[in-house]
Amino acid sequence: MPIKAIAFDAYGTLLDVYSVGALAEEFFPGKGATIAAMWRDKQIEYTRLRTMCDRYADFWQVTGDGLDYACEFHKVVLTVDQRAALMGAYETLTAFDENHAQMTRLKAAGVPMAILSNGTRAMIDSALQAAGLEDLLDHVLSVDTVGKFKTAPEAYQMGSDAFGCDASEILFVSSNCWDICGATWFGYHTIWLNRAGLPIERLGVEPMARAASLHDVADYALASFSG
Amino acid sequence: MPIKAIAFDAYGTLLDVYSVGALAEEFFPGKGATIAAMWRDKQIEYTRLRTMCDRYADFWQVTGDGLDYACEFHKVVLTVDQRAALMGAYETLTAFDENHAQMTRLKAAGVPMAILSNGTRAMIDSALQAAGLEDLLDHVLSVDTVGKFKTAPEAYQMGSDAFGCDASEILFVSSNCWDICGATWFGYHTIWLNRAGLPIERLGVEPMARAASLHDVADYALASFSG
Repeated sequence: MPIKAIAFDAYGTLLDVYSVGALAEEFFPGKGATIAAMWRDKQIEYTRLRTMCDRYADFWQVTGDGLDYACEFHKVVLTVDQRAALMGAYETLTAFDENHAQMTRLKAAGVPMAILSNGTRAMIDSALQAAGLEDLLDHVLSVDTVGKFKTAPEAYQMGSDAFGCDASEILFVSSNCWDICGATWFGYHTIWLNRAGLPIERLGVEPMARAASLHDVADYALASFSG
Repeated sequence: MPIKAIAFDAYGTLLDVYSVGALAEEFFPGKGATIAAMWRDKQIEYTRLRTMCDRYADFWQVTGDGLDYACEFHKVVLTVDQRAALMGAYETLTAFDENHAQMTRLKAAGVPMAILSNGTRAMIDSALQAAGLEDLLDHVLSVDTVGKFKTAPEAYQMGSDAFGCDASEILFVSSNCWDICGATWFGYHTIWLNRAGLPIERLGVEPMARAASLHDVADYALASFSG
């Protein structure tokens, strides 16, 4: 089926969430990578628990909560300044190098594009600005508007609403396989940008397509686009 | 507030979910512990994603799915026989040594007791029977009845319904901190059996009490019981 628009996940997909690991390593020598990994895991875990129990707190809050847990688990003392620096790094995450060129290609072809992210509007805006991507997007959608994180259907609904078309006409792009499974269940045309070469999640659902880079994603989108 | 009954989580709380690690180690030398840990993580992750998206599949299914993912991630080949043996071990998980004596103490004092578990009825029954605990319980409650896993409110509701009293009159016992947070949000009187000495989850909610062993839990329950 032809696609009319693209919705991108932000964290992990356009923005490298593990780029904060270098700063964590500087603060906690030998433990930076494992702290950064647990930080990310807890952040995601907290979004799910809060959504299941209808106890929403925004992504800035759960990101800080995940950091605090990861530091306590690893028995490191996180000073106020270190916490501010790590949270600040999360606001200006490194974007993947290829993003700008590939999104510019899509923009030039007239493909409407959105971000659909768990992040707050402020977090997404500052990260996109730091990455120079903000002018390429037609919509910046934060789940903060609906008070439920992905993979809740209410979060995915925002994409169809913004573009005014059915989810099946929107290509949903994420490097997070769980996000792709949720989006596929919801009804999106999905492509899993499997940057890390991970196994597919065993959830009984498959993405429509797979890609190893945003270049592959853009090729796929341009071949399927009917503007 | 006095308590009228106790609801226990099963996996991790009465049954040692990492006891399958020894068999995994036998099959995959050097990788047993990490495979068992990822198996458990993925099992739990899948319960949440399926619940958020209303795509329930029972705990036997997600347990097998988690095992398959963990093996593929660790690049080990899982034969049909090995899979059957590991899944079989999950049906007869080792119970913690102290369980029988402490639950017998509670039973003798007339405290009504239930299991409230993500497991299927068949999985819980076989594990409780192997552990010799089945005669001590008044109710065995599986979320399979409601088609949503904990921490969904519908799952916690089963405990109040079974005992016919308010959640605040029931002591909810779990070694899984996320389960304790969900149960506290729901309204249970909660005690976190922190067997592993882990940090508390940063979810903005605290259990009413903490314990290091089931002996502590029984002491606490008997001091608060009004039969």
